[in-house]
Amino acid sequence: MQYEPLIPNRLDEERGALVILDQTLLPAEVVYRPLYTTDEICHAIKTLQVRGAPAIGVAAAYGAYLAARNACRDSMESFFADFTAACDALAASRPTAVNLFWALRRMGACAEKHRGEALDAVVSALLAEAKAIHEEDIAQNFAISRFGLELLRPGDGILTHCNAGPIATSRYGTALGPILLGQERGYGFHVFADETRPLLQGARLTAFELYRAGVDVTLICDNMASMVMKNGWVQACLVGCDRVAANGDTANKIGTSGVAILAKHYGIPFYVCGPTTTVDLDTPDGAHIPIEQRDPEEIRSLWYKAPMAPPCKMYNPAFDVTDHSLIAGIVTEKGVARPPYTQSLKNLMAK
Amino acid sequence: MQYEPLIPNRLDEERGALVILDQTLLPAEVVYRPLYTTDEICHAIKTLQVRGAPAIGVAAAYGAYLAARNACRDSMESFFADFTAACDALAASRPTAVNLFWALRRMGACAEKHRGEALDAVVSALLAEAKAIHEEDIAQNFAISRFGLELLRPGDGILTHCNAGPIATSRYGTALGPILLGQERGYGFHVFADETRPLLQGARLTAFELYRAGVDVTLICDNMASMVMKNGWVQACLVGCDRVAANGDTANKIGTSGVAILAKHYGIPFYVCGPTTTVDLDTPDGAHIPIEQRDPEEIRSLWYKAPMAPPCKMYNPAFDVTDHSLIAGIVTEKGVARPPYTQSLKNLMAK
Repeated sequence: MQYEPLIPNRLDEERGALVILDQTLLPAEVVYRPLYTTDEICHAIKTLQVRGAPAIGVAAAYGAYLAARNACRDSMESFFADFTAACDALAASRPTAVNLFWALRRMGACAEKHRGEALDAVVSALLAEAKAIHEEDIAQNFAISRFGLELLRPGDGILTHCNAGPIATSRYGTALGPILLGQERGYGFHVFADETRPLLQGARLTAFELYRAGVDVTLICDNMASMVMKNGWVQACLVGCDRVAANGDTANKIGTSGVAILAKHYGIPFYVCGPTTTVDLDTPDGAHIPIEQRDPEEIRSLWYKAPMAPPCKMYNPAFDVTDHSLIAGIVTEKGVARPPYTQSLKNLMAK
Repeated sequence: MQYEPLIPNRLDEERGALVILDQTLLPAEVVYRPLYTTDEICHAIKTLQVRGAPAIGVAAAYGAYLAARNACRDSMESFFADFTAACDALAASRPTAVNLFWALRRMGACAEKHRGEALDAVVSALLAEAKAIHEEDIAQNFAISRFGLELLRPGDGILTHCNAGPIATSRYGTALGPILLGQERGYGFHVFADETRPLLQGARLTAFELYRAGVDVTLICDNMASMVMKNGWVQACLVGCDRVAANGDTANKIGTSGVAILAKHYGIPFYVCGPTTTVDLDTPDGAHIPIEQRDPEEIRSLWYKAPMAPPCKMYNPAFDVTDHSLIAGIVTEKGVARPPYTQSLKNLMAK
């Protein structure tokens, strides 16, 4: 099988659509959906048809462009009212990943910069900005892949949680970037993918992407990570991130903090991978990162043949925060930040 | 709803059947199955229709009795040949839980003691022995519940993994025993049940049993335990066990060692609950406990609507070993063993 990475976001300029890969149907079906309206794009983000912090940022940027393209052109005011309403709706689609807000701020600033020009010119500028965000993400992912690969040795066992692969970003991926680059270069990694309940991004997406790419990947349940580490099969953990606070505390998929604690217990380095667009110096620490709570039926019944539990209480946070003290390095496109993060992240962001 | 505990094993003397609760159908259906032959009982143990170390021991004891009842009576030799073959088959049904072997050794010793008597007398002695094993398990569970409850305070949050409740034993349960006894006594515990992938004993059985009993139970995915602990919601962890080695290393459901490592990280006491029949002083440490590997399709497809992963490699150990250094106490019917376990377990077993 020839390996061709799946593309999570693609702009169809002619039709005026953002074409997304519907990630909720993987691995059974590869379905692309054209989305025309802000509502459709918000829905796709909320329901995780598009997911992964960088991919959400790109989707939001294209969403803002399409909203501008379709906005009322009666006056500059009505145009901006439509555009701003769309950006606000997109920003409300998910609360934790900061790339979403970053991309929308950037689109908003671009619009402001061109306010007063002909509306066609404003829309053109927004198109260019969205494309730039997309292309920069690809370049950032490649840089992350290279910096991450320098932390690994041929033959290493690598454990990852959730999905921070090509379809979570624009290409290559963040946590999976070093693995896929290493695969191209013959590193012969052995990867363990946590299935990542309740939404199974590890089983459905990570194992699927790595298997397609020919990587030696072994799927495990989340609760098997301790035994895999104890067996001596893991030399490094790589995960993505949804928001990195100024002190290095990192929000990522629920369960990430548990992996980090296990890694520390077994003396295995734990690395967080993400573009600097995920670093939020305005958030002082993890306690200030809002954590999205999702529908408990994701646990009890979403993927199962029948409800697999009584109608009892459930708790379903989408993310947790990994304490900076558990993180050996934060791999960005500008290099690897090391503890103490308060200083190293500030330095990186100033580059 | 009036709470009435479900009974995992019951002997129907008239029909010559072991009537088991088919735990693979819970929580959707409560189905009891009469089992007449050794093959049927082995199948029920292998497929986890009967599961939980103490319940497996009781099922095996009744299985040995039924085999004796149905054995060839042409001669003492042919009777014992049939009986021994049945015991060997039962012993081969699962490898990790030691109660199975303990119960079968006890049944074998009983048969040997009565060898030479009339075959009816031998069979009667085996019936009495199997009933004694069953009744002793009930008494042991109640004693474990009382000792365990002394470790807890009213209003405590308790996290448990897998199922060590009434249906894993004979009544009360081991890890769930103190919780259910506390419920009767108005302790008002808040229990967090790990769903326990891949077979979901936590969701299907523990949450179900506790919910039926009126306990305040919250179901979580295994990977949420870290966040629940970090939130300050857990004051103690209670789990069951399938085999405790002489040094206190404990085999229990896959994922248990991860819970213990998290508990240590967050400064929460981690207790193992089980009858002394689960302690195996002949196994020096956890490295000598055989770990059952199960069908990987349990991960990929068993409960899911469709296969939730590519056809990649999978790893599916049924148990892991929790290092003795992570265990605050081992709660048995004879009292609570504390570190160093090499000494305290020996003392307990000599009681």
